[in-house]
Amino acid sequence: MRKIQRYKHDMDVSYALGATLTYELVKSQPDRVTRIFQSPSLEETEGIIRLKEMCSRHSIHCETSDKAFNILSPKGNCYVIGEFRKTEQPLEDSSHIVLVNPSDAGNMGTIIRTAVGFGITNIAIIRNAVDFYDPRTIRSSMGAAFHVRVEYFDTIEDYCARFPGNERYAFMLTASIPITDVTIKEPYSLIFGNEATGLPDAYADFCTSVIIRHSRDIDSLNLPMAAGIAMYEFTKNAWMK
Amino acid sequence: MRKIQRYKHDMDVSYALGATLTYELVKSQPDRVTRIFQSPSLEETEGIIRLKEMCSRHSIHCETSDKAFNILSPKGNCYVIGEFRKTEQPLEDSSHIVLVNPSDAGNMGTIIRTAVGFGITNIAIIRNAVDFYDPRTIRSSMGAAFHVRVEYFDTIEDYCARFPGNERYAFMLTASIPITDVTIKEPYSLIFGNEATGLPDAYADFCTSVIIRHSRDIDSLNLPMAAGIAMYEFTKNAWMK
Repeated sequence: MRKIQRYKHDMDVSYALGATLTYELVKSQPDRVTRIFQSPSLEETEGIIRLKEMCSRHSIHCETSDKAFNILSPKGNCYVIGEFRKTEQPLEDSSHIVLVNPSDAGNMGTIIRTAVGFGITNIAIIRNAVDFYDPRTIRSSMGAAFHVRVEYFDTIEDYCARFPGNERYAFMLTASIPITDVTIKEPYSLIFGNEATGLPDAYADFCTSVIIRHSRDIDSLNLPMAAGIAMYEFTKNAWMK
Repeated sequence: MRKIQRYKHDMDVSYALGATLTYELVKSQPDRVTRIFQSPSLEETEGIIRLKEMCSRHSIHCETSDKAFNILSPKGNCYVIGEFRKTEQPLEDSSHIVLVNPSDAGNMGTIIRTAVGFGITNIAIIRNAVDFYDPRTIRSSMGAAFHVRVEYFDTIEDYCARFPGNERYAFMLTASIPITDVTIKEPYSLIFGNEATGLPDAYADFCTSVIIRHSRDIDSLNLPMAAGIAMYEFTKNAWMK
């Protein structure tokens, strides 16, 4: 069996930490699960019994191990861990979220959860960027990470070259078109910058630049909030009917 | 001088942790600041010089203390702390955000930041609830906490009795009216439940119950996201012009 070690970017597996997240993993992506760890102190609740039945149906190996929890979740409060294979997931020809240099795993997870909520399931990430497979991203997505395709690009130019037909909307504080006045053309790419620095001004040259107006008493909306409001506005005609 | 101690709910002061937050505190609420601590290792950047000038203008005492940082910010990465008086802030007759049993300080701060961004500066909180003056709330608000009035109520009935003229909108997964179809009447109260449990069904009896529709691949939007989207939709005609 593979050695258990703390997650690192170059590993070919990652981990779903917690019973609910592992349940979501096994339910959505059973073929990618390599094994399940259970803590010796795990209680056999109804949910756990359902999880085990599902694992047995998919011939997923469950092992009891204290060590896995000491290494992967030293702070405790986690009794089930799902180990799963990372995969390449080229994006589909559809509307996308594009995150440029995102630096916070928790924020990325929240954005993915919201994107799945509004039916956008293709996420492009422009490097440098936090690791989608970081267990903190997976956890803060509340399992939505198992419902998206994610592809990394070295530059925004690489991304644009791959999807020249997508209408590009760049969310920037320096933009002049308010989100409520934008004409939405599909398929679209909703592009968001780094938490601290936003998008470079040059994005206005090859995108429709869009602003979500707010009062001067805050510097900006936080990144997941801006992304969530944008996704809501762009998809509401589909979801709200 | 008052003894420096870790923040507790029953203290009459709280703390702004960090230089940017303290700057925002002194700028917005100079009369409430009781003193400023600076770390012995603080560098005299331009921002720090501006902060000190502002303090001197308002006769705010600055003291150098290692101890304050060991007690209030043991993890480090914080070189300025602002101590300020907590105050009662009865709500104005205006539109409000109403948070019912919020349990996470970081979420409350994010909601307050977004509310200030969209011009809603009166926040009602129904107990049991996390402490608005918890330094984690203040920090995650990025200073927006210094721009709002916050009032606690023991029950939602107490709140409704105080503001009978507000139109009440309760955001619930069991609601039938999509947010896009709601007729907005001002002043309004946008009501949100606890992170894990949402609002009790009974809220539909005395509120217009509203849903932000999303796909079945997520259980719910997270609380700050739902609140942020609701505030955006309710205020956009004011902000987007």
